[in-house]
Amino acid sequence: MTVWNENLYEQHQESVKKIYPNGMHAPIAAGIERELAGAAVRVATFDEPEHGLTEKVLAATDVLTWWGHAAHERVEDTIVERVHERVLDGMGLIVLHSGHMSKIFMRLMGTSCRLRWREMGEREAVWTVSPSHPIASGVPQPIVIPHQEMYGEFFDIPPPDELVFISSFEGGEVFRGGCCFHRGAGRIFYFSPGHEEYPVYFQPEIQRVIANAVAWGAGRSTANDLPSTRADNAPHLWFLNPD
Amino acid sequence: MTVWNENLYEQHQESVKKIYPNGMHAPIAAGIERELAGAAVRVATFDEPEHGLTEKVLAATDVLTWWGHAAHERVEDTIVERVHERVLDGMGLIVLHSGHMSKIFMRLMGTSCRLRWREMGEREAVWTVSPSHPIASGVPQPIVIPHQEMYGEFFDIPPPDELVFISSFEGGEVFRGGCCFHRGAGRIFYFSPGHEEYPVYFQPEIQRVIANAVAWGAGRSTANDLPSTRADNAPHLWFLNPD
Amino acid sequence: MTVWNENLYEQHQESVKKIYPNGMHAPIAAGIERELAGAAVRVATFDEPEHGLTEKVLAATDVLTWWGHAAHERVEDTIVERVHERVLDGMGLIVLHSGHMSKIFMRLMGTSCRLRWREMGEREAVWTVSPSHPIASGVPQPIVIPHQEMYGEFFDIPPPDELVFISSFEGGEVFRGGCCFHRGAGRIFYFSPGHEEYPVYFQPEIQRVIANAVAWGAGRSTANDLPSTRADNAPHLWFLNPD
Amino acid sequence: MTVWNENLYEQHQESVKKIYPNGMHAPIAAGIERELAGAAVRVATFDEPEHGLTEKVLAATDVLTWWGHAAHERVEDTIVERVHERVLDGMGLIVLHSGHMSKIFMRLMGTSCRLRWREMGEREAVWTVSPSHPIASGVPQPIVIPHQEMYGEFFDIPPPDELVFISSFEGGEVFRGGCCFHRGAGRIFYFSPGHEEYPVYFQPEIQRVIANAVAWGAGRSTANDLPSTRADNAPHLWFLNPD
Repeated sequence: MTVWNENLYEQHQESVKKIYPNGMHAPIAAGIERELAGAAVRVATFDEPEHGLTEKVLAATDVLTWWGHAAHERVEDTIVERVHERVLDGMGLIVLHSGHMSKIFMRLMGTSCRLRWREMGEREAVWTVSPSHPIASGVPQPIVIPHQEMYGEFFDIPPPDELVFISSFEGGEVFRGGCCFHRGAGRIFYFSPGHEEYPVYFQPEIQRVIANAVAWGAGRSTANDLPSTRADNAPHLWFLNPD
Repeated sequence: MTVWNENLYEQHQESVKKIYPNGMHAPIAAGIERELAGAAVRVATFDEPEHGLTEKVLAATDVLTWWGHAAHERVEDTIVERVHERVLDGMGLIVLHSGHMSKIFMRLMGTSCRLRWREMGEREAVWTVSPSHPIASGVPQPIVIPHQEMYGEFFDIPPPDELVFISSFEGGEVFRGGCCFHRGAGRIFYFSPGHEEYPVYFQPEIQRVIANAVAWGAGRSTANDLPSTRADNAPHLWFLNPD
Repeated sequence: MTVWNENLYEQHQESVKKIYPNGMHAPIAAGIERELAGAAVRVATFDEPEHGLTEKVLAATDVLTWWGHAAHERVEDTIVERVHERVLDGMGLIVLHSGHMSKIFMRLMGTSCRLRWREMGEREAVWTVSPSHPIASGVPQPIVIPHQEMYGEFFDIPPPDELVFISSFEGGEVFRGGCCFHRGAGRIFYFSPGHEEYPVYFQPEIQRVIANAVAWGAGRSTANDLPSTRADNAPHLWFLNPD
Repeated sequence: MTVWNENLYEQHQESVKKIYPNGMHAPIAAGIERELAGAAVRVATFDEPEHGLTEKVLAATDVLTWWGHAAHERVEDTIVERVHERVLDGMGLIVLHSGHMSKIFMRLMGTSCRLRWREMGEREAVWTVSPSHPIASGVPQPIVIPHQEMYGEFFDIPPPDELVFISSFEGGEVFRGGCCFHRGAGRIFYFSPGHEEYPVYFQPEIQRVIANAVAWGAGRSTANDLPSTRADNAPHLWFLNPD
């Protein structure tokens, strides 16, 4: 599988360099390698020729993860079409955070992919709403991210074929942040957590979700470790988990 | 159409009597009548013979709304089967709040219908995630309910056939609070807002949703007044709307 | 609402002229007018300036039907983008038959929209699988089309948000021929029956489906006339209905 | 995993004994063992105490397949509730053919589960409509079953969460014969092919689907062998494949 990272903020923005000195792709790849024994993880970035996504690389890629933001517009259309064809032909695609406005995601969704947003480092809680889904295997209910950019509804995507996670933010917004789509023979997962200004990709639970998604996107599955479907008279989450 | 209300708290609990002196069915029915010109609204309650749901009443009912809690177990099985058959035969069913554990809803869902809950009067924000849905017609984004019982995920229902609303609560929980299901020839809508201890059913936006659902459940539709799908850099909701 | 028709075969191909002397848009529009009392139906065609789909026309159009085939590639991209924006903004779009490869449908789906096909005038049976859906209101189970082009699976579309009809053909193929999609604030319905070489658009049941879809796409609904959900030990369809 | 078979026709009906001398469970289990290396397959039948589904057996069962017909009514309610709880708790359930009217399936679906049927040994073609689904891995497009009981729409089930296969029959009917449902933490797959009077469970493609479903139901997956999404001008299926 191939981890694609734009890798521009990490080179040019001091605040990001400090958090991700080796690029966001480093913890993303490390998490996949830790969770999926024997996974062969390749990294490709924007600056490489053909953005590192040559015909040969894509032909050898069963799942591709995608993180981009600043250079969405500069990704070459021919590469986008190449990835699009590979997805319809059966390659898995895991689109991360700001990748919701990438050409490839918008091409596959057919909608504007716009959303509400706000950057003030709010706490995010990621709730599993599909406990039988392999991508939710082994994750806590909820995953708590201490500081994150807010992404809120309405998120202009097609209704997800499988809705796995819904997030809430301190400001009261909700977001369908873990969404599966089937297109052609390919499986697509969009996962909203992760931002260049916060160390989200170092969180083991987030790494676990991405690894689960890589396995699912390839038609494999990790060990089945179903989350609790416990129903209870619940204590106030933040009272018990003060930030 | 018929508004069914258990109508027990309103008779026996002082705190509820104050809020709903004429029963919760009164503002529910009034909202439907206001929004749906010409709607013939009948009321039926638990205490009536056959809970007010005789063969004759049901045969003349195109949509039934259902509020119950304290007497779930005491609703007669024969009436439940009668309603079940009518739903499969094409009657719409709108299940409100604590109706998630009613016999009829559990019978139709096939799951435990359990959820997390907490009663401390938290603020709820109800977000539209399906702006093209007729049930979302004309409602603000979000609907804010000042005080409400918390209902949280995981909510053990089948994945909704159409997910219209997702709620957030001050404690950080999220909830799929506006869900459509198609069963047989019948349309079912579950809507979580509304609790006997808060005046939720007097809120015009909540009444509008229920009226939209009644129209949808009957295969009719109200005027098409699509919500905004605006995407923006959003200000903090609660900073702008302090409680 | 606006009926858009490419209207080229009808001008240039003798066999089609005979069946549709006034264009396929004529029976399509007539059916809508008959079924939806008071509907204001406008017609627009490929040959008109801006294909008849000016900003002004689209702004006044709540639902657009689309039939095209020979000139898919020649539809101007600016018009396609204009229609795309209107759909996301809430306009209904009803795509007919060979419109599955139109630029606007492919743009909205994000997939190849390819399918199997064969033209030898086979019998098609259109089965309702969602009897509670307003688009299925009042149609027989099944609709039988005596002669039709075969469209078969795999049809490379996103999984429909609502699957209303499935067709079978004499050759044994099946096809998801009645599919709803929600994109932005817009409702899209794809309906496969209808071909320039067969008088399918004169069939009252087909006209009824298109009218139902127009009403649904506009957020209105026709009278609720639910199809039978009868289950039975069924006689052989073709034995009873010899061609 | 556990293969549950009613195993009554095989003991009491000559025509069935000839086709399935060791019970239908024998080829079902053999197929799973062949396709899923290392699978531990247990068999349980109606005649055993507690129908072979004791607390201990169910606790050790990650996926249960279910074939029943003649004795649906005689399956004990306590066992049905036990299976129901295990499914919501995460056990996979694969319901085969006439199991659509079993107590456990009807309990989980909440609908009547009725369908059209006709027994005259018609040819069935099983088409994949979700080529990215693991249950469709490695199966031909279509699977052809020479002789089978007809099951037709309307099939009164909830809209499937994932629709994998649609069948056609010689009589022109269609059927949603491969359907996934998510309930609680459990995964359910209904698969219509297979009848006591035809040797369907000896067909390797049918065995492959059941094995894929067992893997999927357990959160595992077989090798990813995606079906073709080829679109073409298709020759007439039966002309090329005369019975």
